[in-house]
Amino acid sequence: MNFSFKPKLKSVLELKTYISEYPGFPAPGIIFRDINPLLRDYYFDTLYFMKESISEEKWQDIDFIAGIESRGFILASGLAALTNKGFVPIRKLGKLPGKVVSEKYNLEYGRDQLEMSPGKGNVLLVDDVLATGGTLAAGCSLCEQTNHNIVDILVLINLTRLNSFSWNNKSPISLINYDY
Amino acid sequence: MNFSFKPKLKSVLELKTYISEYPGFPAPGIIFRDINPLLRDYYFDTLYFMKESISEEKWQDIDFIAGIESRGFILASGLAALTNKGFVPIRKLGKLPGKVVSEKYNLEYGRDQLEMSPGKGNVLLVDDVLATGGTLAAGCSLCEQTNHNIVDILVLINLTRLNSFSWNNKSPISLINYDY
Repeated sequence: MNFSFKPKLKSVLELKTYISEYPGFPAPGIIFRDINPLLRDYYFDTLYFMKESISEEKWQDIDFIAGIESRGFILASGLAALTNKGFVPIRKLGKLPGKVVSEKYNLEYGRDQLEMSPGKGNVLLVDDVLATGGTLAAGCSLCEQTNHNIVDILVLINLTRLNSFSWNNKSPISLINYDY
Repeated sequence: MNFSFKPKLKSVLELKTYISEYPGFPAPGIIFRDINPLLRDYYFDTLYFMKESISEEKWQDIDFIAGIESRGFILASGLAALTNKGFVPIRKLGKLPGKVVSEKYNLEYGRDQLEMSPGKGNVLLVDDVLATGGTLAAGCSLCEQTNHNIVDILVLINLTRLNSFSWNNKSPISLINYDY
């Protein structure tokens, strides 16, 4: 299978144009950043710029792309497809069969629990939005507990004033930044 | 961006080897088919055989790939990445902002509700497992209500004795079949 696609957008900065804002969704005080228009019309571009944000050397080290349920799945699996890597899900409570590792965490609006199956290998951890960092920290913790080594952490959107997230001195790579 | 990946497996029939079975998960009487080993080690192969199951002519008609939350996202978005199509999510209740169309349905274990944003275009509707057909019927109904035209319906696994699903005389394409 040979592919040769090119991005339609000229620069990663243009991605922001296709993100809609919904103040007060899903809870008061939150500005929801809706990536669906981007996924609909510029999905390949989004993945292309995510891929380009990581060096070729790093890509060679990566065995799997771990995505956090649910919107993280959309970006992680698309990236896995484009780079010929395996996909590993980090799922919500009770969704994975067999032996799992669990981690409770606080999120921007509520409290939740994530699970991951045991395994090993080098992973790129991917999610859509980094807000307070609770979800991503739970994801990092699960990767470590399951013996997956985190090569890099990649998010599409970083709400920079809501967090100063890093994990073992590794700062997440983000394509689009907002203050909050 | 140029890709030239080849599948590692010789035939679509080999995919079944990498699906684990968990009887009694998540509820008594259910045999859970776990696709995670396949996604981990043969994700590209899975997508490759899904892509090949649809004719080149049909692919030219498809604008978007619609995936059903959550595991449908993993297959739909990977396929969208490989074929340079847009991705459209069909989500669980309360996850999509703005104006949405809703549809309640019965599923193999429980009752649920799906939502989709308005839009138009030709879609390939993708999910992981076709069991009773409740989820897929809700997905089809939402595509129609939102003015998306369904070109084809594609599932990885069909539990054939649990359904005789079709939608407007269109039968779903499936790669892997089990009786139940």
